[in-house]
This record gives sequence, C-alpha cells and structure tokens, in this order.
Amino acid sequence: MRIDGRRYNELRPLTIIPNYTKYAEGSVLIEQGDTKVICTASIEDMVPRHIKGTGKGWITAEYSMLPRANRERNQRDISKLKLAGRSAEIQRLIGRSLRAVVDMTAFGENTVTIDCDVIQGDGGTRCASITGGYVAMCLAFKRMIADGYIKETPVLEDVAALSTGIIRLDGREQAVIDMCYDEDCSALADFNIVMTSNGCFVEVQGTGEERPYTNDELVNVLKITAPAIYNIMEIQRGALR
Amino acid sequence: MRIDGRRYNELRPLTIIPNYTKYAEGSVLIEQGDTKVICTASIEDMVPRHIKGTGKGWITAEYSMLPRANRERNQRDISKLKLAGRSAEIQRLIGRSLRAVVDMTAFGENTVTIDCDVIQGDGGTRCASITGGYVAMCLAFKRMIADGYIKETPVLEDVAALSTGIIRLDGREQAVIDMCYDEDCSALADFNIVMTSNGCFVEVQGTGEERPYTNDELVNVLKITAPAIYNIMEIQRGALR
Amino acid sequence: MRIDGRRYNELRPLTIIPNYTKYAEGSVLIEQGDTKVICTASIEDMVPRHIKGTGKGWITAEYSMLPRANRERNQRDISKLKLAGRSAEIQRLIGRSLRAVVDMTAFGENTVTIDCDVIQGDGGTRCASITGGYVAMCLAFKRMIADGYIKETPVLEDVAALSTGIIRLDGREQAVIDMCYDEDCSALADFNIVMTSNGCFVEVQGTGEERPYTNDELVNVLKITAPAIYNIMEIQRGALR
Amino acid sequence: MRIDGRRYNELRPLTIIPNYTKYAEGSVLIEQGDTKVICTASIEDMVPRHIKGTGKGWITAEYSMLPRANRERNQRDISKLKLAGRSAEIQRLIGRSLRAVVDMTAFGENTVTIDCDVIQGDGGTRCASITGGYVAMCLAFKRMIADGYIKETPVLEDVAALSTGIIRLDGREQAVIDMCYDEDCSALADFNIVMTSNGCFVEVQGTGEERPYTNDELVNVLKITAPAIYNIMEIQRGALR
Amino acid sequence: MRIDGRRYNELRPLTIIPNYTKYAEGSVLIEQGDTKVICTASIEDMVPRHIKGTGKGWITAEYSMLPRANRERNQRDISKLKLAGRSAEIQRLIGRSLRAVVDMTAFGENTVTIDCDVIQGDGGTRCASITGGYVAMCLAFKRMIADGYIKETPVLEDVAALSTGIIRLDGREQAVIDMCYDEDCSALADFNIVMTSNGCFVEVQGTGEERPYTNDELVNVLKITAPAIYNIMEIQRGALR
Amino acid sequence: MRIDGRRYNELRPLTIIPNYTKYAEGSVLIEQGDTKVICTASIEDMVPRHIKGTGKGWITAEYSMLPRANRERNQRDISKLKLAGRSAEIQRLIGRSLRAVVDMTAFGENTVTIDCDVIQGDGGTRCASITGGYVAMCLAFKRMIADGYIKETPVLEDVAALSTGIIRLDGREQAVIDMCYDEDCSALADFNIVMTSNGCFVEVQGTGEERPYTNDELVNVLKITAPAIYNIMEIQRGALR
Repeated sequence: MRIDGRRYNELRPLTIIPNYTKYAEGSVLIEQGDTKVICTASIEDMVPRHIKGTGKGWITAEYSMLPRANRERNQRDISKLKLAGRSAEIQRLIGRSLRAVVDMTAFGENTVTIDCDVIQGDGGTRCASITGGYVAMCLAFKRMIADGYIKETPVLEDVAALSTGIIRLDGREQAVIDMCYDEDCSALADFNIVMTSNGCFVEVQGTGEERPYTNDELVNVLKITAPAIYNIMEIQRGALR
Repeated sequence: MRIDGRRYNELRPLTIIPNYTKYAEGSVLIEQGDTKVICTASIEDMVPRHIKGTGKGWITAEYSMLPRANRERNQRDISKLKLAGRSAEIQRLIGRSLRAVVDMTAFGENTVTIDCDVIQGDGGTRCASITGGYVAMCLAFKRMIADGYIKETPVLEDVAALSTGIIRLDGREQAVIDMCYDEDCSALADFNIVMTSNGCFVEVQGTGEERPYTNDELVNVLKITAPAIYNIMEIQRGALR
Repeated sequence: MRIDGRRYNELRPLTIIPNYTKYAEGSVLIEQGDTKVICTASIEDMVPRHIKGTGKGWITAEYSMLPRANRERNQRDISKLKLAGRSAEIQRLIGRSLRAVVDMTAFGENTVTIDCDVIQGDGGTRCASITGGYVAMCLAFKRMIADGYIKETPVLEDVAALSTGIIRLDGREQAVIDMCYDEDCSALADFNIVMTSNGCFVEVQGTGEERPYTNDELVNVLKITAPAIYNIMEIQRGALR
Repeated sequence: MRIDGRRYNELRPLTIIPNYTKYAEGSVLIEQGDTKVICTASIEDMVPRHIKGTGKGWITAEYSMLPRANRERNQRDISKLKLAGRSAEIQRLIGRSLRAVVDMTAFGENTVTIDCDVIQGDGGTRCASITGGYVAMCLAFKRMIADGYIKETPVLEDVAALSTGIIRLDGREQAVIDMCYDEDCSALADFNIVMTSNGCFVEVQGTGEERPYTNDELVNVLKITAPAIYNIMEIQRGALR
Repeated sequence: MRIDGRRYNELRPLTIIPNYTKYAEGSVLIEQGDTKVICTASIEDMVPRHIKGTGKGWITAEYSMLPRANRERNQRDISKLKLAGRSAEIQRLIGRSLRAVVDMTAFGENTVTIDCDVIQGDGGTRCASITGGYVAMCLAFKRMIADGYIKETPVLEDVAALSTGIIRLDGREQAVIDMCYDEDCSALADFNIVMTSNGCFVEVQGTGEERPYTNDELVNVLKITAPAIYNIMEIQRGALR
Repeated sequence: MRIDGRRYNELRPLTIIPNYTKYAEGSVLIEQGDTKVICTASIEDMVPRHIKGTGKGWITAEYSMLPRANRERNQRDISKLKLAGRSAEIQRLIGRSLRAVVDMTAFGENTVTIDCDVIQGDGGTRCASITGGYVAMCLAFKRMIADGYIKETPVLEDVAALSTGIIRLDGREQAVIDMCYDEDCSALADFNIVMTSNGCFVEVQGTGEERPYTNDELVNVLKITAPAIYNIMEIQRGALR
C-alpha cells in the first residue's frame, strides 16, 4: 500500500475546471490530488522575430510557483532577479509538448502563451501543467474558431503527461504512477512521460535519482504509464465538452 | 443605476475562504465581485537586519498579478527584470496597513510575509489584498498560538480596506463605493481607504484622476465608505470563526 | 516649541533657484530647510507606446537620492539592481501630481521627464520634489513657447505639496506642517498633501505611523496645510518671474 | 550514407585532452567532430546552504557557449541579463548526471563545479559536456587524492553521454548516433542518453521534434546507443591514464 | 584663441566648496568651468572580504551622472539595469588614484567610499572627480582625527588630475589643457593625467581619438599639464584650510 | 634574472593560430606564455543607432574570462548579474584600439564585434586581446573582400599592444616587458601600451601600483616597449600570410 492508500497504477483524483478565469482566451484549474495549477492560454497577434513572415504561429509556456505553494516559502524570482533554473527547464518542456501536437501553420502568425501558475504543489506539477495547459490551449483555439479567425482546430492529437517513479514500498522496489510529493522525495528514479492519443511519445525524461535504472525498468515504467495517460485524456475530453 | 446595477453604497458580493491552501500558516481566497486574490501568510524565524536583536517582529507584503489576471496579458516581472512600479507601491501599502494593527513586540523575532497574488482583477485588488491579507495574518497568528509559540494574538484591532470613487452616473457626479474595473477606468477621483474597527484611518489615499477634488468631496467619500468597511469586517470575522 | 524653534504652522526657509543647470529645458534647485533637491525637466520628442498616435503628450517623473543624502550612506540602486520600492512609490506620486494640472493634449506628442535628485534629505523630499518639479516643468513649457513649438502654456493651475504630521510636542499631540527629519521619525501620523491653486486636492496620502488617526484629525491637518501651500505657491511664482 | 559519410552507428572522431588548462584541479578539451568543449573541474571548500553540516559534498555544473561558437553570433547572457533557458536546462542535466555516479559522502563538505564552455558547437554539445566533464571531475578527485584530502576516489562508476536521433536518410527514417548539427536540425526525434559503465541509464531524454515517436523506436535507439557509449568510455579511460 | 577665449595653458575658473553637504564625513562641490561634481566621502566600519583581517582599510569610488547633466537626457543606469561601461571605467580610475596617495594601513579596517555625482558635465568630469574626491577624502580623514579614531592623516601626498588634449586651433594642431566639452568632442588625442605633489604620475591615460600620437606629443602634453596641476593643488589646499 | 629566466626586454613565446574556429568570419587563438585568448571577429549587417544612416561602420569588443582561467574560480558575470568592472574597462580599451587603425567609412554600415575570451590568464590578457583581436579583425576583412563586399581592406596600419612594468629585480627597480602574472602582482607600476606600425601610440595607460612613477621612468618604459611591439607585429603578419 502506498502512503496515501493507492495502488501502484492508481491515479490521484483529477479534476479539470474549464474557463476558470474570465479574461483569458482559454483557462483551467487543474487539481491532481493536492497539486493545483492555474493554466491560462493567451492569444496575441504577433510572433517571435525568427518566425515572422513565415506564416507560422508560435506556442510557448511560462511556469511559476506561488511563493507559498510549497512547505517552505520560496522567494519570488523577481526578488532574486533570476528565473529559477527548474522553472526554465519545465517551461521549455511544456512548450515543446504542446507544439508537438499542433499544426503550426494552421492558426496564422499568432502566439499562444500558456501560463502555468502552481497554486499548491504536491508532486507532478510539470505534468499537470502539460495536461491542463493542453485543455487551456484547446479552449483558446475554440475561441478563435468562434470568433471566425480560423475554421477548424489546428490540434492534431491529444497530449497529456504523467510522472511515474520507482520507489521503495514494503521493502521492495516498485514502479508507481502519479507520485505525490512524499513519494517523489525518496524515489529511486523518476520519469516524466508525455504521450499523444495515438500512443506515441512526445517526451520521455527519465532520471536516476538514488541510482541509475535498467532498460527493463524503463520499459516497465512506460508500460504502466500509458493506460493512466489514456484515462487522463478522458478527463481532458470531459473538460472540453 | 451603476453599470452592474448596484446602488452607490452597495458592496459587490464578497466571500473569504479561509485555509485555501494547505502549506501556508494562514491563507484565504478572497473574491470581491470578479476580483480574486489568494493571500497567504508565511511565518519565518528571522527578521530583517535593521530590527535584529530588538525583540520585535516584522510584517511585510508582496503583491503580484498573474500574467493573465487582466484583459490583456502582462509580461511577468521576471521577464522584464523589474518589479512593476505599481506593485512596489501596493505592497508597501499592504505592509503598512497590517503593521498598523499589530503589536510588533508580541510575536518574537519572526517575520510574517503576506503574499497577495491576484488571480483575476476587476478593480479594487489592493484593497481586497489588505482585507484578505488581514484574515490570512490572523490565521497565521492562530497557528502560532495553537503551536504554543505565543499565548494570545498580537492583533490589536481589525483592519479592512475599500476603494471608493467619484464617477459620472446619469449625468451627475456621484461618489460610489467598491468600484469595478469599468467604473475605475473612467473615475474622476479614486480613494483607497484603510480603516480599523475603532473607526480610525490607517491610510487614506485619494487621487484626482480626471480632476482635483474638493474638501467636501473627500469628507463625503469618507462618510459613505466607513459603514461599508464595517460590513466587510463582519465578513472577515465570519471567515475567522 | 518645535525642535527647530518653529511654530506648528510655520514653514522652513524655502528657496527655489530657477535655471540651476544649463542643459535641461527647465531646472531648479529647491531648498526647504536642509532638504535640497535638483529638479530638471527634459522634453523629448516621443511618447510611450500606449499613447502613440493619440495626439497627447506624457509627463513622467524619476526620483532618486544621492548615496550620501542621508545620515547613513545608502547603496545605489544599480548596485542592488533594484529601484528602491520607496523611490518607485514616490516617482509615481510626482508624475500623477504634475499630470493633474496640465492639459495633456496641448503640447503635442512629447514627453516631459521630471528628474528629482535629492542632494540632501531632511524630511519632506517627495513634497519638495513636487513643488520644485512643478517649477522646472513650467520653465520647460516656457522654453517650448520661446522656441515656437506651442503658443501658450498647457498648465491649467498651480500645484504644490507639503508634508504635515501629528507629533508629540510638550506632552500634547499636535499637528505641525513641514516636518523635518527628526520630527518625521517620531510622528504619530504623516500626511502628504498636494493641492492646486484652486484649493482642490490632487493627492491626499495620510498614514497612521504610530497609531491610526481620526476623521477630525484629518480635517484639521488639511485645514492647517492649505494656507502654507498657498505661501509655497507664492515662492513658486517668484521663481517663475 | 550520412551527410559526413558515416554509418548509422559510427561515432565522429573523439579526442579528450586531459589537463588542458593549468589552474583547474581537473580540466579537458573534448573534441567530438567539430564540437569542442573546455571542461574544468574546480574544487572549493564550501557547500550550498541546504547541505551545510551534513558531511556531504556537492557537484554542480555550469554550461555556456562562447558568443561565436555557432553559425550566428549570439549575445552573451550578461548582455541580456538572463541565463539562456537552454543553458539552464543543460547545466541541470550535467549536474544530475555526474552526481549520479559519485558517493556524495566521500569527499567532505566540498563543492566540485564543472564549467563546460563550448568553443565551437556542431551538435551534441550537452552530451560532450557530460562525457568531458566526467573526465575533468575524475582528474580533480585524483588531485584531491594526491594532495591527501581523500584516500580513494568517490566515483562509483563511469558515466558518458551520447545524442542519438531519428533522421530521414535516403528516403527512409533511420536512427543514427552522434548527430552533427545539420542532422540535428532536421531530426524527427532526438535523444540524449546518459549511461553508466554498468549498462544502466542515468538519464534518458527523448523528444519528438517533427513527430512523436513509438515505443519500438525508443527501444531501438537505446539499443544502438549503448555500444557507442561503451566506446566513448574507452576514450575516457585513455584520457585518465 | 580657444573657443572660450583661453590660452592653451590656461585653466577654467575652478572652485572647490568644502563641506557642501551636512551628513557626509567629507564633501565638496567642485566647479571647473561649467563642469560641476558633488563629491562625498563616507566612512564605514567594514572592508571588502578580501582584505578582512589584514588590518588594512579600503578606498573605493563610485561615479555617476545625473540624467540631465548633458545636452541630451540619458537613461539612468537602473532603468537599463546596467552600470554604464564608461562609469565603470571612470570609477576604477578614481579609486586607484586616491589609493595611490594614502597609507592603507593607517586608518584601520574602514572603507572610505568616494561618491562622485556629476550635476553638470562640460568636459573633464573624471579629472574633476579625482581632484574634488581627494579633498572630500581629506576632510573625512580630518573628521576621523577630530573624532579620535586616528592620530594623523594617512594621506602621503596630494593628488589632482587634469585632462589635456591635442586639438585643431587656427589651422594648427595644438596641445591645450583643461578641455571643455566642445573641444573634447573634436580632439585629435585626449589625455587624463593624475599627478602627485611630488611631481610623479599616478596615472597617465592617453588615447588617440582622431589619430595616434607621437612620443614627442606625449612628452609635450605632460610638460604643459604639470604646472596646471600644481595650480589646482593650491586650490585644493585652500579648500582644506 | 626574471622569475622565468627572461631578460628585461625579452618577450614570452608568442604564437597566433589563425582561423581557430570555423564559424567566425575571423578568429585566432593567441598564446603569449601561459596566457591564452580566443579572439573571434563577427560581422553583422547592422550598426548601433547613433551611427545609422551615416554610411559608417562600427567596431566593438567584448572581453570575458572563463570562470577557471585563473588560480581561483571566479563566478560568471551572469551569476552576479553584473559585468565585471575590469571587463568593462578592458573591452572599451580593445574597441578604441582597433577603431583607431581602421577607416570606419570603408566597410559599409556593418558592425565588427571582437570577442576576446580568456581561456587561461597569466598576465597581459588585455594586450594579448588587442594583438590577437587585430589579427581576427583583419581575417574578417579578408573574408569580406573574398565575398565581394569590399574591394580592399579598411585597415590603415597595424596595431599591437604590450604590457610593461617596473618591478623589483635583484634588489633594483627595473622596467621589464611582457610581465607574467607573478611579476604583475608585485609590480611597482604597470603600463599598457598600444602602438601602430608607424611608431605612434593609440593608447598609453600607466598606473602607479605600489608608488607613483616619474617622467623619466615613463619615457624609459616607452623606449623599451616599442621594439618588442614591432616584433609582435612580425608575428601578426606571419599569422595573416
């Protein structure tokens, strides 16, 4: 039994509240266990310089935690005048994951910015940001359709993400999905997996924390993660209906 | 009739949800109309250098808006490497307002940091931050009492804030309390008033926006604001029960 | 008797030396007691993005203290890579105060920047900056008229500012105008009042420092401040002749 | 045939020059094809605050490119006052990879900083930084042994890294190891793989660039990468002899 | 005849007003023609880390121009978040020049910070900063003697500086001392010379602006500059009496 | 005998490897004793705002040391968010030195940026950067000629630099050229001299470190430095052939 009573392949309660804020073109509040992230999608009529004039759009993400999203209060980035390295790493991952499932030529020279602000963190915030950010992005594209800017969604397939780890459980080493913070802290290895609805991977990032991991362990992690990601996609679809 | 149908002295719906996040010593979500602010109070066992060794504590505040809290997306401070001047001004106001009602010698050499993060802004965010921040601070002191660090609350009296303005309404100029964003945008003058439960002022800040204002106008604004602030204090007390 | 022998409603010696520097379109050295501020007004042929194309101009202010303007040396902002929060607050106040008395449509798409650099601070630097900045601005508009850019001044009425406080004096609590630094340090409450020559308020900012203040106290403070501000306006007019 | 005539599983010429600079405790110049990175390992008698007093050491990395390491000149980070997000991501990867093979309790409360400065970039700079950084680190530990600070190396096993991708080649899609920049630019998917001498993974990071990738593709990529990493480890050992 | 009617070896009017501000341990306003610089010397009971515990003191300088000290308004450093390269260069020169004439072991582990703020610039600001900064520093040491911290001044000899240039004058090329801004702008070569009362050089910095210069020209420049620097030292001594 | 066995007027071994990197328009690795600097020249089709439209080009330099180029590891500028003052000073010197020997109207509105990155520092890095930067710049102009952008080189004469100092040697004070770091550390005075092939000076910067220096000493330093700079120019020419 895991610390919170779940089975190794059991997701935490997951809800995605669409249209959580009133100004953003798309927005959600995603709650995955005690992890809570506000994701907004903002559309702006401009693109970064390097793709200006190509007819393509751009999708980018920013990730931040409120100062007291964690056990200890963290100083704001602006107080240190530095974006936390961890945030820089995460927002690049979110951006790549979302761009991977969108036809970048199909929504004009517009930029979609996905802001992921963690209200409360209890493990898996980067994956929740991808999962929630995807829904916010879809809602923003719906708005573009409703407003007559585009005819159909440029989204090619669904994308969602899940964190899975190898932890010690009752004296054995066990792969478990959707780790909470306490599990994450003592995980032997830790995987962030981003999949599409076609069963393909957009990103696999596996890190040996306490020790390196074997090929078999990686294969097993991927195997138990896939069905859970399909379940998450059902919840995404519910939020989009 | 005002744009949202309220009378000149009618508050917007106001709710304060206590213990909104699980890690902070004190926290609330305050919703005042469509303005939504998360206020957390964090207690840390340290004080700024200039009061070290005096036996006094410190109370400070930080204020920030999520990038898409408004009609347009705003760049994050960290992207510009500058704290917005408006935020600097507001967080100083919040800090002064809360320190004014606390016995700074009565909670040891600890710092209480009030983080006010605006999820959605529709006017009056600085006043909502004071009103909500006060409740978060009280909850944090309750936690200190429960944990045995202090015997009784160092809070001397209640404090709450309200924004009142002079607007054009049906061809007349009229003082109205608790302006929403649309009213604020076209206000002739704009007042942020911070009061204690004893009927005294901690801060009065009145700005002539479209035109200077008279002494009589100031007196009238203060008169119609006071009862509304007492109503707000009732809601604060409800949240603290 | 106050610390420097003045009566409660007596200004410190106040001089405004016009055209203090030779390059700025307008400039003054204002000395109010031992407080000394250089105010320059610079006119530049450009406006911030958000008003480009509206035909309006812009007026903005920057405020800074020399490192050794005070008892202790302060690090420069650039050493800390942060504009002091207090400076941010003050320069916003100066800008609002000056914009309030100018017809922003009457001097073209130009920006007037008022730089207020405190050479020596002995209380009341923000009010002296407004008072002196107003004269520097008027001088700059005179230059624009002399150079044929505009036909008449866009200034609608005079503006000046004064700091007034409630202090303990001979065992009583007494409102006194134009506090010096020593009075300011131990003031019970502290008011910055910006008035026009028509007797209206552009800004009233009152802060309870040691304790909140009552409505009657506020009314009294405003009452004793107004005549002194009229006196200051006489000195402004002298400097402009 | 690949663009530079190599077979799909053929490494570029790889040399590691040990002791490349004279001051650092450990240093190498690693050349992998036209990619050239200077890696230095510096030992300092201090650790970050969060591990002070634990008896553990710390290993961290910094990564940077010279402004003209690429086809176009890039502005320095200091000109933009921001660490490039890509650099932040990469230096975290290098640090994790090296910490994974070291007994952090076996070299005292010291910090080893691995500086990876890319002199010329032609694909695979992050993997070359890990491979070269590992050798620099080992040299620094040798120095510590020689100087009598530690008795034996705290390194538990070897670590090296290789970038592998799926590219279009003669009309087919083909996994190829050790991509040069031109291959990298048009890769369908791109994998950075960090392995130990025991055949385990420290990090697997696979990104679908042009399209998501399948489980089979991932398995194949790992299969062709492993032998090449063993070859790299032979070269590392040569440099350390 | 030079643009302002002076002979080639004639100084501009030079005044040094001692004790210009009331808080600094030492201060002057130096006016050299239309160049005006406020120099303050602040003594703080601390030294930089690298000399802590050596029993030595430290002398350092900071240099800045007010935004409108010049023909055009310059953005403040803090607005750009960068110390101007020119200021960095100049303040290092001032610091080296003053340290060169002081016995650094003779005033305890204290830091003297010389702040040079240019109120108005008309050429020669860096030299005026050295000349004025020297007087401010001497005044601060006098204060230390008066306060009983040290018995005698740690100053070993006088130091002053002058800018000399080679300009075109009536169709000839002519070395002239103490250039004003207009001369400086079109100078062929430009020298900043820092001398002691013993006739030695602390710094010679000669730059070919429009063209390189010969050895003979350098020798001539030094020859005509020395007597003028002795004159400046007379004025320094007057200010110190 | 000097610490490394050289005579007072003997250069360290000096090599300049042209075309050291493959992307830059011009590049060298310059090794002067144990000092090693990579200099690249990048040509970009743009100029700073203040010379746009004048038909002139621009030449600028950036200077940086790798963190472990010295005995101790230095934090990167980006970690401190500040360009080191010393680097600011040096890169301005390099830029001035190179601009002095180029016809700025003869290569179009292009910017040549010279990046000088010190791989290993053992004294004289700023002079080596000028010497090497000059060769890199010439190579870049050769490329422009080869590519048909310009017909002939805009370089008017050669430029090279050398550091010379006055040190204590066998109980006497002796001027020596091309100081290594150990000599530099204890030098009484220190001169950076930048000369052209015509025997003129572009820059002379002489600093009294331990004591001021006399006119005779300066004259002697210049006399022994000139022949050595001519020797360096021979090596520059060799690298350019």
